[in-house]
Amino acid sequence: MADEKRYKLTVAYDGHGFHGWQKQEPKDAEPLLTAQGVLETAVRRAVRFPVTVMGASRTDAGVHAVGQVASFTVETSIPVERLPAAINRWLPINIAVVDAEIVDLDFNPIGGATSKGYRYTVHNAEIRPIFDRHHVHHYWYPLDIDRMNEAARHLIGEHDFASFANTHHGRLSTVRTVFSCEASRKENRVFIDISGSGFLYHMVRIVSGTLLEVGRGHWEPDRVREILEARDRRAAGITLPPSGLCLMWIEYE
Amino acid sequence: MADEKRYKLTVAYDGHGFHGWQKQEPKDAEPLLTAQGVLETAVRRAVRFPVTVMGASRTDAGVHAVGQVASFTVETSIPVERLPAAINRWLPINIAVVDAEIVDLDFNPIGGATSKGYRYTVHNAEIRPIFDRHHVHHYWYPLDIDRMNEAARHLIGEHDFASFANTHHGRLSTVRTVFSCEASRKENRVFIDISGSGFLYHMVRIVSGTLLEVGRGHWEPDRVREILEARDRRAAGITLPPSGLCLMWIEYE
Repeated sequence: MADEKRYKLTVAYDGHGFHGWQKQEPKDAEPLLTAQGVLETAVRRAVRFPVTVMGASRTDAGVHAVGQVASFTVETSIPVERLPAAINRWLPINIAVVDAEIVDLDFNPIGGATSKGYRYTVHNAEIRPIFDRHHVHHYWYPLDIDRMNEAARHLIGEHDFASFANTHHGRLSTVRTVFSCEASRKENRVFIDISGSGFLYHMVRIVSGTLLEVGRGHWEPDRVREILEARDRRAAGITLPPSGLCLMWIEYE
Repeated sequence: MADEKRYKLTVAYDGHGFHGWQKQEPKDAEPLLTAQGVLETAVRRAVRFPVTVMGASRTDAGVHAVGQVASFTVETSIPVERLPAAINRWLPINIAVVDAEIVDLDFNPIGGATSKGYRYTVHNAEIRPIFDRHHVHHYWYPLDIDRMNEAARHLIGEHDFASFANTHHGRLSTVRTVFSCEASRKENRVFIDISGSGFLYHMVRIVSGTLLEVGRGHWEPDRVREILEARDRRAAGITLPPSGLCLMWIEYE
């Protein structure tokens, strides 16, 4: 069609209610509720055409997003500024399109991404969290932020992150570049913010689990260098649960 | 018993998962899940005695609390500083005891309260809230905080609040004293904070519904004075949903 345009959506969702981002339609069972699945259904209803919606990051079950990026191509009379509302009316309450823009027809949400930011949120107090219990990880041992940042600095730059990847990562190379990695505290909340060119399977959750061991005083900050050198998943800390993890933003050229 | 002591608990809960505060055990049906019900069960397990737990405020279904007060009398060897953890281990994840202290044996959580504070939280933006959707009320018309505060000032002091009470309030007098009532904004959130000697059934939710009509520009701020004078529920705004309401604190002499 001559008037086809490519649209880029920014999407927020509460991962607690989804079996992850990626559409899952097993042949011999009911389809699983996924963010991509409900979004694609809503976009198709809004634009009245069976488009395919492609996402930038395949977040795991239970992982949240405020800045997921999704894209599709279609000819529609809906003005781009009305597109979020037109799609949101077909979406359940735990997911929303927060922004829409027109991009080049060759925009690739996966391959075109140059940088991604994740935040891991820790509820660091004796009493458990009540209201956002599905959006934080409860860790009651006191955490030393300075120690965590000393450890985090070893991760910045290009490294082989094999020790920080689930062994089922399925990638040819485990070399990635981390642009920034920082811990901070606001009252009883500790945030681990990390940005990079891309991340391996479970990488942010394993990095966070490792930084908690350091912040708690179990491990010395310099141990992170040894963990990197080991290139062995068993050297690093545990994989923290998905509840604390949120995909914050994705940047494109 | 000679060593009986009276305990005062401060309790936080997510009202979304409860049929309100007050225990409900219908004779011909399953007991309903209530905050008081699960708390009493947990206290009994912790202190190993069938105590009765009395609460200060009967919050409605869906209403939240960070500062509910509950009280019971028992003889126990558990030190008071260990009591929150001892009770919390028997509580579900949507409720927690955040503080415990020993009070006089005649402490009355209901009659002794001199002041209570509630907060109503409005998500004031076009895009709906995702992560705390059960803890805010979504209102998309732009709100003018100054107008809301001009209207709120009429409520301060001793007044007959009959117009701001559900007609099934069941009280002999509808005269109450409001100590403070203020609207404020932080980004896309609007807060209505109100404190008073006590509140009628649905009063905070009706006050909030009325202030939104003013903030939106539908009604003039001075109309609140006329609504008070009418002593008629039909004069005021709608009862906002429970999701935005939270019991913040209760003060005692």
